[in-house]
Amino acid sequence: MSPRVGLDPAGIERLMDEHFPQARELGWEIVSVGDHAARLRLPIREAHLRPGPSVSGPTLMALADTAMYFALLGAIGPTLLAMTTSLNVNFMRGCAGGVLVADARLLKLGKRLAVGEVGIRAEGAPDLVAHATLTYSVPPSRRGE
Amino acid sequence: MSPRVGLDPAGIERLMDEHFPQARELGWEIVSVGDHAARLRLPIREAHLRPGPSVSGPTLMALADTAMYFALLGAIGPTLLAMTTSLNVNFMRGCAGGVLVADARLLKLGKRLAVGEVGIRAEGAPDLVAHATLTYSVPPSRRGE
Amino acid sequence: MSPRVGLDPAGIERLMDEHFPQARELGWEIVSVGDHAARLRLPIREAHLRPGPSVSGPTLMALADTAMYFALLGAIGPTLLAMTTSLNVNFMRGCAGGVLVADARLLKLGKRLAVGEVGIRAEGAPDLVAHATLTYSVPPSRRGE
Amino acid sequence: MSPRVGLDPAGIERLMDEHFPQARELGWEIVSVGDHAARLRLPIREAHLRPGPSVSGPTLMALADTAMYFALLGAIGPTLLAMTTSLNVNFMRGCAGGVLVADARLLKLGKRLAVGEVGIRAEGAPDLVAHATLTYSVPPSRRGE
Repeated sequence: MSPRVGLDPAGIERLMDEHFPQARELGWEIVSVGDHAARLRLPIREAHLRPGPSVSGPTLMALADTAMYFALLGAIGPTLLAMTTSLNVNFMRGCAGGVLVADARLLKLGKRLAVGEVGIRAEGAPDLVAHATLTYSVPPSRRGE
Repeated sequence: MSPRVGLDPAGIERLMDEHFPQARELGWEIVSVGDHAARLRLPIREAHLRPGPSVSGPTLMALADTAMYFALLGAIGPTLLAMTTSLNVNFMRGCAGGVLVADARLLKLGKRLAVGEVGIRAEGAPDLVAHATLTYSVPPSRRGE
Repeated sequence: MSPRVGLDPAGIERLMDEHFPQARELGWEIVSVGDHAARLRLPIREAHLRPGPSVSGPTLMALADTAMYFALLGAIGPTLLAMTTSLNVNFMRGCAGGVLVADARLLKLGKRLAVGEVGIRAEGAPDLVAHATLTYSVPPSRRGE
Repeated sequence: MSPRVGLDPAGIERLMDEHFPQARELGWEIVSVGDHAARLRLPIREAHLRPGPSVSGPTLMALADTAMYFALLGAIGPTLLAMTTSLNVNFMRGCAGGVLVADARLLKLGKRLAVGEVGIRAEGAPDLVAHATLTYSVPPSRRGE
């Protein structure tokens, strides 16, 4: 397989199950991956909540990080060693249950660095629960450009 | 109890066990809390790792968020409703095992907002594994100033 | 004038000229303001460049901050005391001349805090030169919600 | 000159005057550079203020960026092409006059990326006016490690 061929949802699920099964614990479901973007769903469980109750910050950050990672795998193919180098997140409103939807979009796919943003909403609602910007280091063999 | 009396480590542990037991899952241990600061230890387990292997970003962010929250509880007392409003983190080097130490320090404790920074290192090592800056909203009854 | 009536471009220009003339030094031109968004142009001058040459970081940050401020004035009306509380920016590619276009969009307009993002591109080009996320404190008399 | 010899304040001033004279416009003065750190003073002028009055966000960001750049030049020597790749800043309190002091400190100096933080205070005051975290790309010939 050429290193520049991106992964589809099934390919990402296989990669995670083989090499990164603990990533499953969060509970995400892949809705779509492609065009430098990815959409995930997260049915909220008790373990995701903090007092309020509201979805915890770490849950939202893990969801944002996963969505951005899958958008990247969808663009550059199977690379376990792409690493988050920075994350900035603003938490905008609480969410106590139901399903979260995370939309990740690559803003730049460079030789060494990818930059993307992720918006997280309650399913069916227009308002953002959280918004994150992330940077990823891209391993040499997978560099774009 | 006056709202302005901060919590000590035992008080924080009790508050967590009563109202926020799922926060225990991460596996932190409190070393110290006080003087607008907090230090936590995190013995690294398999569940904290991502391929590399290295401690995952979400683990480091959850640790940073917890350390900042405890520094805040140590300054303003028992308030479950202090909420993270933003987090910025830079991941600087990998860490595959051992124990992480997180040092949180409040940079500002205002009427509506607290700002702090957290440095995370491998225990006994000088170099930063990650560095985070966080803002927290402070509920009205606990406001400083 | 009701505090909830937003300013149009002419109103913003007047407000700046009367109360904040030094903001003019950057050299921005307003293209549009409204619908919780604002678009500015910035014809690049020698003073905006750093060695490379490329538009300097401070120039891009000032442009992002101004675009977000105008989007906010367009939503909540004349308030000089809305203040930037945080800014996160990623610089993605250099730009040595021509005209920059900044698009600001409010992501949340709350009672105490507004959050927005700004994308900056070279005029006519699709790729981002920089992307920023900003938070603003909203003075009491201008609060939304 | 070996590429790994850092610049002292006089060397930085010369480099700026020769290659980046527009950086002088801000009005900074170098107090010290070395040990992966730098301290600058900024006497506040009318052009630095926004309504309030208070030092403007762009002024504080430009000061933070300059202090971090000088800390980097002090560590890796004369390299005009080190570029800011990201900046995160929290603005904590206003400052209407006097002198600002910015303290920059490198948190990581890697092969491709440097990370640092900058605290800005009113001269003689303990409280932070602003706190920034920055990342810089390091050109190949100047890489540490």
